Amino acid sequence: MKISARNIIKGTVAAIEKGATTAHVKIEIMPGQIVTAAVTNEAVDSLKLVVGGPAYAVIKASDVMVAVD
Amino acid sequence: MKISARNIIKGTVAAIEKGATTAHVKIEIMPGQIVTAAVTNEAVDSLKLVVGGPAYAVIKASDVMVAVD
Amino acid sequence: MKISARNIIKGTVAAIEKGATTAHVKIEIMPGQIVTAAVTNEAVDSLKLVVGGPAYAVIKASDVMVAVD
Amino acid sequence: MKISARNIIKGTVAAIEKGATTAHVKIEIMPGQIVTAAVTNEAVDSLKLVVGGPAYAVIKASDVMVAVD
Amino acid sequence: MKISARNIIKGTVAAIEKGATTAHVKIEIMPGQIVTAAVTNEAVDSLKLVVGGPAYAVIKASDVMVAVD
Amino acid sequence: MKISARNIIKGTVAAIEKGATTAHVKIEIMPGQIVTAAVTNEAVDSLKLVVGGPAYAVIKASDVMVAVD
Repeated sequence: MKISARNIIKGTVAAIEKGATTAHVKIEIMPGQIVTAAVTNEAVDSLKLVVGGPAYAVIKASDVMVAVD
Repeated sequence: MKISARNIIKGTVAAIEKGATTAHVKIEIMPGQIVTAAVTNEAVDSLKLVVGGPAYAVIKASDVMVAVD
Repeated sequence: MKISARNIIKGTVAAIEKGATTAHVKIEIMPGQIVTAAVTNEAVDSLKLVVGGPAYAVIKASDVMVAVD
Repeated sequence: MKISARNIIKGTVAAIEKGATTAHVKIEIMPGQIVTAAVTNEAVDSLKLVVGGPAYAVIKASDVMVAVD
Repeated sequence: MKISARNIIKGTVAAIEKGATTAHVKIEIMPGQIVTAAVTNEAVDSLKLVVGGPAYAVIKASDVMVAVD
Repeated sequence: MKISARNIIKGTVAAIEKGATTAHVKIEIMPGQIVTAAVTNEAVDSLKLVVGGPAYAVIKASDVMVAVD
């Protein structure tokens, strides 16, 4: 499947924390740079995510903000 | 200002394309890895963004998806 | 690629309207039911979307609201 | 109330799963096609959602992505 | 229609700027406090928005961030 | 840090409800007007949010909808 989301960043699953319905998945996209995703527990199971396994962080361009110091 | 958004990734502005109301800002967060942000033209002006200047890509965790091959 | 987004709905591209930077893509997911997506012009080109062609509307669960009459 | 969100899809509540703060509501929009919404528990109560009752899935166009095989 | 979005803030339309496909609507929710919405041009027409007219800013709780100085 | 998000509304933290992974933070932005934010528990801790303390509700323009009666 090819998706319109402009940002697909390769990394490694660094942590998975399941909540009651919402899970937090941390993906290391470069040494020391973690991206945190809040997804459904159901998605974690469906994708068979495991710590240490490969994963992409996928983000729609309209959900990215820009900041400066 | 300190924000709740979990993902604040440092980079360099690689390109700015202004549309009629919406601009696309490309931030290089590591060599060869671009993050594209769709923001208002107004924000580009307000932040005085320039190509080559420093910028952060800021993303709320609930806007990040996870994918696997 | 398998994605965490819980909503992947099959349909047919009914219309594509490109703006200066943002395009509106209409996908018919059942007779008479259109889903409108606002994506980058770049994504329309990258996915080679054409009116009449197949496409999926993909939506993260945290972006879906519920309403009642 | 009339809202700017371009996508308002009628269906039937198929399931409600409340978490600690976040609930997942599944709406069947056509036979076999479920849309999953992640909303606050508070919203589930406020809308008096019940399994089997009517409901709309409401989605802003800028939150819809497009994918192709 | 009653919606799950937790934030429905009454105000007055202060400005409407239509782009090629995306419009910016500014709603004054209290004296001196503007909320800016980026919606489709189509929505502006469909809701018959006019400067000076009443309108609500509607925001899903999962799209609100928190910041401190 | 200066951010592209067009909506930064000052208020006071009225309530914090932590869930398993997701917290709901209520910010009073004017007397009687609450804005609810769903953020990570981690963000609540990181920002040291306390009831009665000052906080901003921050919202990207593309996440704001408009409604009329």
